[in-house]
Amino acid sequence: MDGCLHCVFTWQKACSIFHTQGWKHLRRSFSTEKVIHKDHSLPNPSWSKDLRLLFDQFMKKCEDGSWKHLPSSECKVPQRIHSFKTYFLDSKPVKEDQLSQARPFTRSYEVGQGFEYAMFYNEDEKRTVCLFQGGPYLEGPPGFLHGGALATMIDTTLGVCTISCMGLFMTANLNINFKSPIPLCSVVVISSQLDKVEGRKVFVSCNVRSVDEKTLHSDATDPVLVILYPYRMTFLHLILLFSLQR
Amino acid sequence: MDGCLHCVFTWQKACSIFHTQGWKHLRRSFSTEKVIHKDHSLPNPSWSKDLRLLFDQFMKKCEDGSWKHLPSSECKVPQRIHSFKTYFLDSKPVKEDQLSQARPFTRSYEVGQGFEYAMFYNEDEKRTVCLFQGGPYLEGPPGFLHGGALATMIDTTLGVCTISCMGLFMTANLNINFKSPIPLCSVVVISSQLDKVEGRKVFVSCNVRSVDEKTLHSDATDPVLVILYPYRMTFLHLILLFSLQR
Repeated sequence: MDGCLHCVFTWQKACSIFHTQGWKHLRRSFSTEKVIHKDHSLPNPSWSKDLRLLFDQFMKKCEDGSWKHLPSSECKVPQRIHSFKTYFLDSKPVKEDQLSQARPFTRSYEVGQGFEYAMFYNEDEKRTVCLFQGGPYLEGPPGFLHGGALATMIDTTLGVCTISCMGLFMTANLNINFKSPIPLCSVVVISSQLDKVEGRKVFVSCNVRSVDEKTLHSDATDPVLVILYPYRMTFLHLILLFSLQR
Repeated sequence: MDGCLHCVFTWQKACSIFHTQGWKHLRRSFSTEKVIHKDHSLPNPSWSKDLRLLFDQFMKKCEDGSWKHLPSSECKVPQRIHSFKTYFLDSKPVKEDQLSQARPFTRSYEVGQGFEYAMFYNEDEKRTVCLFQGGPYLEGPPGFLHGGALATMIDTTLGVCTISCMGLFMTANLNINFKSPIPLCSVVVISSQLDKVEGRKVFVSCNVRSVDEKTLHSDATDPVLVILYPYRMTFLHLILLFSLQR
């Protein structure tokens, strides 16, 4: 998950017993919690012409309100949330000094080296689009993007799509078909959408296409299953909410 | 794919028309091509006690020859191989200056920040084991490993397993079930094995367990499909072989 989701976690843990209802809540969290940092989803010098053009096209789509640009900021999640989360899932606790160095995976590289991307969300269509340029540090086969780097961005895009529509989640399954390798430093468009919801199971899918839409690089058409688990969070949310209100 | 696979690509492209027959060939490539660099799969100060203990256990298993430690070196693939590969797959060519900065994804971080791992291969059992410690820069949910980082290591381990047994490949499908989140900076064991071969299709699977083997973090039990494509490489291999022999 990326910086966006870090913000979502912060916001959700602090202000919601169950789950969010859209990005309006996320934006509100930025103002009330004073955790605004640099937005990494805005153009920078490493962005190629393709990525800039696509970004501008989607920003234009945002003008009528049908699409929304999703900011991606490195909000440092409070240490107590880390600890909560760690203990909450009955896992081995992580040392404090290790957690203090933690960075969201998709924002852990210097500008241009790794994951450069911007996301847009269409609430009516329950769709999220990620414009992604994989930098030179993400190499798999010589000259091409590592399959794991693409899987990372697919997971992140599906995650943002799910969290935008439904709230907190855990990815339960990721099923990716790799159709055509992606040249390093090129731009692809990852389009995801919510397919259906069955109880605590959410099914989302996506495809990855070249900028000219001629090449289908990859898809995750077998529904990707994610499970919402707010029911387990109720008590901890209440504690955290109380803690933050003091 | 990681540093190991970069070496394999170099070796295979230069010295084999079809595909390799095991790690003996890879090791030979190190001596004849003079591309030996630091082996990143050896213990370093960032390794936890768990990772060191597991590494020592597997190194002991190597003493009778049943298991082999697989080195992981950042061999810089010659630029012409990059270009070959780029054009070969009918993709948009990558700019030379961008390729010169390329780094294998799983070895692109400073020591301890990202992917710390060592791999071992059992030729008789067609199995590859990866001992993996995910550093603080691979964070997904607060305090936990990003699902994409785990997918990256699963893809890499399956890739090494396949290339060790069969030769060059492209991952065609990756189907991962996430069972339990992995705390950041903890160690897991990724065990992969070759299940079956059907023509150009290779089926490999794996599971990801905690060090004490009590927790199944993830698996890829639905066969993961990879396709060998040496038949398309014959002509280019010959050109490259000629080029290197001059």
